[in-house]
Amino acid sequence: MSAGLAISLDAMGGDHAPDMVVRGADIARQRFPQVRFLFFGDEARLKPLLKDFPALAATSEIHHADTVIKMEDKPSQALRGGRGSSMRLAIDAVQSGSAHAVVSAGNTGALMAMAKFVLKTMPGIDRPAIASFFPTMRSESVMLDLGANIVCDASNLVQFAVMGNVFARTVLGVREPSTGLLNVGSEELKGHDAVREAAAILRQANLPGRFHGFVEGDDLAKGTVDVFVTDGFTGNVALKSIEGTVKLYGYFLRQSFGSALLAKLGYLLARPALNALRARVDPRRYNGAIFMGLNGICIKSHGGTDAFGFANAIGVAVDMVQNGAIENMKRDFDQMMTIPGAVTGTAAV
Amino acid sequence: MSAGLAISLDAMGGDHAPDMVVRGADIARQRFPQVRFLFFGDEARLKPLLKDFPALAATSEIHHADTVIKMEDKPSQALRGGRGSSMRLAIDAVQSGSAHAVVSAGNTGALMAMAKFVLKTMPGIDRPAIASFFPTMRSESVMLDLGANIVCDASNLVQFAVMGNVFARTVLGVREPSTGLLNVGSEELKGHDAVREAAAILRQANLPGRFHGFVEGDDLAKGTVDVFVTDGFTGNVALKSIEGTVKLYGYFLRQSFGSALLAKLGYLLARPALNALRARVDPRRYNGAIFMGLNGICIKSHGGTDAFGFANAIGVAVDMVQNGAIENMKRDFDQMMTIPGAVTGTAAV
Repeated sequence: MSAGLAISLDAMGGDHAPDMVVRGADIARQRFPQVRFLFFGDEARLKPLLKDFPALAATSEIHHADTVIKMEDKPSQALRGGRGSSMRLAIDAVQSGSAHAVVSAGNTGALMAMAKFVLKTMPGIDRPAIASFFPTMRSESVMLDLGANIVCDASNLVQFAVMGNVFARTVLGVREPSTGLLNVGSEELKGHDAVREAAAILRQANLPGRFHGFVEGDDLAKGTVDVFVTDGFTGNVALKSIEGTVKLYGYFLRQSFGSALLAKLGYLLARPALNALRARVDPRRYNGAIFMGLNGICIKSHGGTDAFGFANAIGVAVDMVQNGAIENMKRDFDQMMTIPGAVTGTAAV
Repeated sequence: MSAGLAISLDAMGGDHAPDMVVRGADIARQRFPQVRFLFFGDEARLKPLLKDFPALAATSEIHHADTVIKMEDKPSQALRGGRGSSMRLAIDAVQSGSAHAVVSAGNTGALMAMAKFVLKTMPGIDRPAIASFFPTMRSESVMLDLGANIVCDASNLVQFAVMGNVFARTVLGVREPSTGLLNVGSEELKGHDAVREAAAILRQANLPGRFHGFVEGDDLAKGTVDVFVTDGFTGNVALKSIEGTVKLYGYFLRQSFGSALLAKLGYLLARPALNALRARVDPRRYNGAIFMGLNGICIKSHGGTDAFGFANAIGVAVDMVQNGAIENMKRDFDQMMTIPGAVTGTAAV
């Protein structure tokens, strides 16, 4: 690998690929001049696109891929038949050392299956998890798992807590992150066995930062803790509930302003403030879900995002590489191995 | 029972009881002049309070209760030691036929345990569920369970679907409600066994309305279906996530308007519109969670609500009584008994 930092891109993944990927990379290039890009995809489409961005083209390579993983492909199909796909080759580049991280806006299930197969799960981790960060009343927090693991036991949750801790330090820049387990109440007796057992283990754990205990759904927006740990079913529903509510509120707000003349004038005067608000809750700012627990950095962008959102997903990848996320996680897991109940191999499947 | 409609009130439940309960009942009285109220609680405190509301006093009875269930009491404690409590006596009034429904802003777990013990679960239902309705982009929807059942199997979810269907017809006034099962994706293969099996059963079921299939977290705000069915863990986290996000957005909105002079002027002009928005997402408007599946109507108000919110919880009770919620549910359950997999007694505990 040459000097600098290389990011491999699945140029064909996402609703607006490959244009959106190339434009997103160009935005990221301006923010991170030290980064080189490896585009994997249809050379005949990528070459003319890159011509419009000479500065990007100068720090990029195009690697032709014959096929594309479709959004409706099953993970098993992608694994079997997707060896020559843009997604697979982009992941392979991380495995071979040609790139430091991979970013794709393609099929989530296929990306997880292939990344797990190629990069392998880190020692001490039973299952990788999907993590993402979001705005809170306090600042920003991370939640995981967001859908990779539908049913989780206590060991899985404990491992997610370690991964989330590393994420908070690496990407959010929190030196001593606080961690909470999502539950239906804050009392020790609340919830099902998995959360209660995970809490018992985490109370003894020696992670950097503090274990807060149980937190509830409304703590997500409050930002009560830096790291929210939950199973993939609950996390997926909670995050999408929040995203949907932000959209609903924005819709109600527009309706309110549209309803009277004075309100319309008020809207014009307040527009800069409202634009600032919109930017603050803009889902594109929080684009970039991270597959945690693999021997390599793999970032999943929203499939429907635009170039601005995709550039932010690249930004997450750059943060993780520059702050040594993988090395931090390996070190923390070695420490965690001494905690009873958090040892690998005890987790049920 | 004398003519008209009687509601029994746990006058001592909630952070601001008994004042809030009395004031809330007076607001409800103006909306529902046909309703009589039975206050259960400390007579020495209630008598002077009711003096300030002569019209309310004229249609109310005070029944003295010696004790109060505290917010931190365990359900088992409440069951054993709470026989003379305001909460228990208010529930007993429904069982004895003195009242048509009970409303309490007290301890949720204790209320559920006592209501289940006194009113008993309806034939055909394994476990009662907590339901609530909320604003959506389309109109209003109901979700259940919201925390009574942390772990649910397919039969539980199917029974929740029937209860939610009745709720949508009775309280929301939807003649043919659509129903969806919360999941991490809309494809048939997504999710864990319980949701997949429940979906298979509901596809054959002959409920009034339509079974939509799987829905996701962002469908809650969209109002994709009238009835959202899920386990109590996921439902509790999702609803609180939404409530927290609404508060966060309001906070961001105030911050945006506070940041510049022109924005402040815009805020003044837009204030009526913003007040309308606030009213639209006001959690007090959606106060009143319903314990579904019991042989009687029991409504749980938020513990921290004010008189306006409590009056809305009473309104939900009145709607359910007037629209025959219990009779509807019994009839629907008789029909459901013919559906394979939805039969009572097959549910795991």
